[in-house]
Amino acid sequence: MQDYRYDGDITNGKHYDEIIEADRSELLSRQFILIERETPVVIVISGMIGSGKSDIINLLNEWMDTRFIETHVHRPPSDEEADRPYFWKYWRRLPGEGETGLFLGSWYTQPWLDRIDGSSSRKKFMSSLQDIVRFEELLAADGTLIIKIRLELTEKQQIKRIKARKSRPAYSWRMSADDMDHNYPFEEKKKLTDEMMELTNRPHAPWFRIDASQPHRRNLSVMHLLTNFFEEHLKRGGPDLSGIEQPNGFLPSKDYMAEMDLTPSIDRPDYTVLMEKLRKKIFKNAWKAHHKKRSLVCVFEGADAAGKGGSIRRLIRGLDARLYRVIQIAAPKGREQTTHYLHRFWRRIPRAGFVTIYDRSWYGRVLVERVEGFATEQEWKRAYAEINQFEKELTDAGVVVLKFWLEISADEQLRRFKAREVTEHKKFKITDDDWRNREKRTEYQAAINDMVERTSTGYAPWHLIPAEDKKFARVEVLRLVHEALKKMK
Amino acid sequence: MQDYRYDGDITNGKHYDEIIEADRSELLSRQFILIERETPVVIVISGMIGSGKSDIINLLNEWMDTRFIETHVHRPPSDEEADRPYFWKYWRRLPGEGETGLFLGSWYTQPWLDRIDGSSSRKKFMSSLQDIVRFEELLAADGTLIIKIRLELTEKQQIKRIKARKSRPAYSWRMSADDMDHNYPFEEKKKLTDEMMELTNRPHAPWFRIDASQPHRRNLSVMHLLTNFFEEHLKRGGPDLSGIEQPNGFLPSKDYMAEMDLTPSIDRPDYTVLMEKLRKKIFKNAWKAHHKKRSLVCVFEGADAAGKGGSIRRLIRGLDARLYRVIQIAAPKGREQTTHYLHRFWRRIPRAGFVTIYDRSWYGRVLVERVEGFATEQEWKRAYAEINQFEKELTDAGVVVLKFWLEISADEQLRRFKAREVTEHKKFKITDDDWRNREKRTEYQAAINDMVERTSTGYAPWHLIPAEDKKFARVEVLRLVHEALKKMK
Repeated sequence: MQDYRYDGDITNGKHYDEIIEADRSELLSRQFILIERETPVVIVISGMIGSGKSDIINLLNEWMDTRFIETHVHRPPSDEEADRPYFWKYWRRLPGEGETGLFLGSWYTQPWLDRIDGSSSRKKFMSSLQDIVRFEELLAADGTLIIKIRLELTEKQQIKRIKARKSRPAYSWRMSADDMDHNYPFEEKKKLTDEMMELTNRPHAPWFRIDASQPHRRNLSVMHLLTNFFEEHLKRGGPDLSGIEQPNGFLPSKDYMAEMDLTPSIDRPDYTVLMEKLRKKIFKNAWKAHHKKRSLVCVFEGADAAGKGGSIRRLIRGLDARLYRVIQIAAPKGREQTTHYLHRFWRRIPRAGFVTIYDRSWYGRVLVERVEGFATEQEWKRAYAEINQFEKELTDAGVVVLKFWLEISADEQLRRFKAREVTEHKKFKITDDDWRNREKRTEYQAAINDMVERTSTGYAPWHLIPAEDKKFARVEVLRLVHEALKKMK
Repeated sequence: MQDYRYDGDITNGKHYDEIIEADRSELLSRQFILIERETPVVIVISGMIGSGKSDIINLLNEWMDTRFIETHVHRPPSDEEADRPYFWKYWRRLPGEGETGLFLGSWYTQPWLDRIDGSSSRKKFMSSLQDIVRFEELLAADGTLIIKIRLELTEKQQIKRIKARKSRPAYSWRMSADDMDHNYPFEEKKKLTDEMMELTNRPHAPWFRIDASQPHRRNLSVMHLLTNFFEEHLKRGGPDLSGIEQPNGFLPSKDYMAEMDLTPSIDRPDYTVLMEKLRKKIFKNAWKAHHKKRSLVCVFEGADAAGKGGSIRRLIRGLDARLYRVIQIAAPKGREQTTHYLHRFWRRIPRAGFVTIYDRSWYGRVLVERVEGFATEQEWKRAYAEINQFEKELTDAGVVVLKFWLEISADEQLRRFKAREVTEHKKFKITDDDWRNREKRTEYQAAINDMVERTSTGYAPWHLIPAEDKKFARVEVLRLVHEALKKMK
């Protein structure tokens, strides 16, 4: 955590105006290079009441090209936001390429408020900070430039500032979002803030403290800090990632795939009876879960032709169409290509109370993107932790995450590929890609083993399902879905 | 409005299953061609309680490829939806290319419910239907395939069906969104529904009535209706637009631009005083409007170098950054290119209580896209009515729409272009495009005249602002913004 102060001479108002006029173009020209380089920029402006946060926001909009800036103010979550994991609110507000997001009130605000008024425990507060650190790490690693500014006053200065403000009529019309913390002792708030800043200060997302006692000096400090920070970033060619731990030496994973027993099967009569029974229970329990606002996410991954689609079709027969959604994940397109790969999954998180079925998923990053080289080694190695964090945030919000890997033997796969080629309405399902993937079976098996080892967490374990017998796999899927829904009661 | 009935022989359950199995691939293969052709499909399923709407939804998800289907159920608007114009809720749910949106409950639901329970007048009901017709017209003209299905029962059949349903335990867990209309006489509801269907039945968005008394026949009717409808569409190569009125012979517009008096100017001292006064008032009134949840949309269009950016910068100095947003409209990118041109404007409509400033806007369609040939003649000629409807829906929702055209003479423009080329931080503002546009001044002036003539409506008139003197234009803009905000009190 650093202090930043503009030390130039500001003898009078006229002098100040001249400096602003002269130095503004320095800031602006750097913004334009960042736009050209399509860099997303996140600026967090925090500070105590009376420190001039919103003055700074107004000035930044004036100094920089406001067309590429979006200002976000802390507000209580909307009902759509409240029905989703905490960070959804921020994912949907993240700046795109070349855009700047000004956050007056940010992901720090709610944990801080909850801790100050005692509604969250110290443990919960620390865990929120952990989530924040991971969130910022993920953004920075993906190229987002993050800077966090804290405007500071002493208690005396603050009291004076609040008194002065009350006498200015314009202010009487303003919302008092930042008046929430009015009733807590200054020292206590300052201590909590300092601790929060200390624990979340990182080279790729640094905190800067700026003395806000003299407005002119404060403004110039912000202007020069940003100019310098942008300049450093441009020189380095990206965020300072020195503080992000690189995934350690990758020890070989256990060979989960080789150890799978693919022989289990089930008779047709048993299958029919079981499926009918499970479907009825699932139908009912999905409605119960809906009324309790509990969500279920089912991730279907598996070898080509392992029967993902068929299993999904059998599963949804047991669900009311009003309650589920099937999302097919293909290669990203449009804006999806230019934002973090998790963005499109975050964006589409349903409101609480629904079943979302993914036909392929975010695991593409560590499977096809890894094997085919669409993601760099750094990217896919980083992805395991990012995915775990994503699933943790889902489960923290009460979502149950079920992950199925459907496996078949190489021989069975070949048999199914050939069968597909002769069945009219299945022809479209077999492509050259499938044959190519088949040739890379060894690489895929290694990727799958790593995935299972690194992302089978306590809160979202992998279910490895032998799918050599399609009926067996379908029953297993329905059984696990049923169990998950039942537990939501 | 047509009745549709599958007339084949369904002697028993086994026979039914065979027909389904055989004919399903007919439906599926047409869906795949629609996906290949990137056609968005909208299917509205409506029907009285007990008619089996959600059975149909489930079956469609089973018969078709559910990965390209999204089901939407009627629910009360979320707070984010309630804070925006009525159709926002549906714009955000529209299917993309090759996707199918199944609407169980649609834009018809709310007007119908409001009319049945008497909360809206007959006039309001009719006006909603008008909006619906325009909405569907716009989608169809842009290539969306729309079909609307009504499942029908007689009163006797319905009573029987509801009784039977109550005895099935699975149903006791379901939401009863469609039970809302329970308390109104059957005949009254039927009459209103028939009228609604009659008035909104169009070749590009037809209603089909299906007898729902026998579930098997009902299911097969839906399957065959859709198969045939898709097939007709594929043969024709797009929606049936025969019912959409083409814009009539285009009479020349008045020459608004030539008639503008560009001489008005203002002295520096008056300017400074006026601007300061207006800014203070605007600051205060924008907060008042915020608290009343009233929104203001400011559209800035104008000749290149007419001073749009400068006027916007002076305007936002009078606004709290928490209350406004500046949106710059450049060429559409990513998914924006593949959906209706109004989609990106609909998508970004802010919640009630904010000021949104557009630096260029949806008028690009009838200006640059017309002159440069990016839009076909049909497209830009259609756009005037589409834009008027869009602005009507904004104003219906309480949004004030202010539209500014900033005009300068050709000589003044040349002078400013040359000045820009020598000023360091303005160089980026002048591009080859600007010089090219200048050469097409005559075409642009014609397009502007047509725009003013056709889109200056009572609810959203154009303000033509002489900008030869920048100061005069800035004061005018602030004056008009101030007046608009004041009226919101």
